[in-house]
Amino acid sequence: MPLHRIYHPLSAFSSSDKQKLSERITALYTDRGLPAFYVVILFTPIESESFFVSGKPTDKFVRIVVQHLARQLPNEEAKKQFSERYENAIAPFIKDKGYDWEVHVEEVPPEMWRENGLIPPIKFPEIEKEWARQNKPIPY
Amino acid sequence: MPLHRIYHPLSAFSSSDKQKLSERITALYTDRGLPAFYVVILFTPIESESFFVSGKPTDKFVRIVVQHLARQLPNEEAKKQFSERYENAIAPFIKDKGYDWEVHVEEVPPEMWRENGLIPPIKFPEIEKEWARQNKPIPY
Amino acid sequence: MPLHRIYHPLSAFSSSDKQKLSERITALYTDRGLPAFYVVILFTPIESESFFVSGKPTDKFVRIVVQHLARQLPNEEAKKQFSERYENAIAPFIKDKGYDWEVHVEEVPPEMWRENGLIPPIKFPEIEKEWARQNKPIPY
Repeated sequence: MPLHRIYHPLSAFSSSDKQKLSERITALYTDRGLPAFYVVILFTPIESESFFVSGKPTDKFVRIVVQHLARQLPNEEAKKQFSERYENAIAPFIKDKGYDWEVHVEEVPPEMWRENGLIPPIKFPEIEKEWARQNKPIPY
Repeated sequence: MPLHRIYHPLSAFSSSDKQKLSERITALYTDRGLPAFYVVILFTPIESESFFVSGKPTDKFVRIVVQHLARQLPNEEAKKQFSERYENAIAPFIKDKGYDWEVHVEEVPPEMWRENGLIPPIKFPEIEKEWARQNKPIPY
Repeated sequence: MPLHRIYHPLSAFSSSDKQKLSERITALYTDRGLPAFYVVILFTPIESESFFVSGKPTDKFVRIVVQHLARQLPNEEAKKQFSERYENAIAPFIKDKGYDWEVHVEEVPPEMWRENGLIPPIKFPEIEKEWARQNKPIPY
């Protein structure tokens, strides 16, 4: 469900950083009961000569694009809270290391979303809990 | 129009697989009369240490992001049918090879869409047919 | 704010091309008073065997995905004008070099957009001007 595409300078993250950052991002969703496997995170290194901010090449900027499918946050306050939780999750690996960064979250309608070909059980909380317990999509 | 971004483990697809999978995806649209050149497919290999599912590195997962511009599917049934056709198209190269996978399709408003700088003839079926016949954008 | 993802053949752009093209794209926004640092441009080279148009590998196509956050263009005419300005900005490096190309612009709701963790001052023009003058996000 949540897809996180993290575009970063070549040397921004070690393997261990990526591991820990992914765990922190994943926990934002599993803490709310979503299946862990819903959370997909892609790190994409971008060379300085291909990464422009202000029309200038950079190796000090991280750009994150997040897409949500399983949940549309119901109001402005909920969206604000999510952004705050997200910023806290990523800060140790971005802000605290001196990078500039930008994040946005998109909410995509879920009608054409599939997990292993199955319609995710957005409308069936009990089934979603079972998917979370087993951490995989199960026919229902 | 349809843009398919396929994020995959390094060894998931041979050149031949990518060729055949692209043909199957493209046929989903040309079968409906859309110009073949509308269909753009980008395969992006992601190293295991940069590809996280459930907060763990993976080399067994394929994530596909599809964007539609030329057509907004009119209702839930049409969207469901598209997803089923899509799953059938990709199954031989993903499901049948033992990968887990996730797909979602977004419908993007077409007002700021251009092909070779031209406004695609969404509202002009005869011109669209000519684009399909010649398989290129033609001023009109 | 505006995020430009430019998917291109390996040999499409030199470093100098990327630099100049980025400056031209950035100017589309700074000319309208937006902070220069809002403009992020990512060049992503795609190998021919991973880049399909019409179901065939290509090294002559450029696909650009643009996302706007700070401004939703108010009507169809404004959107059309933006697309025309965009096409003019990129033409010397794409059209004039013999590539085919496709562009679309998405308008993403800004509620969960952050710059260095700060809510961008969309509703506060004077603060936005200060961000533009200093070309960085400033707490307010």
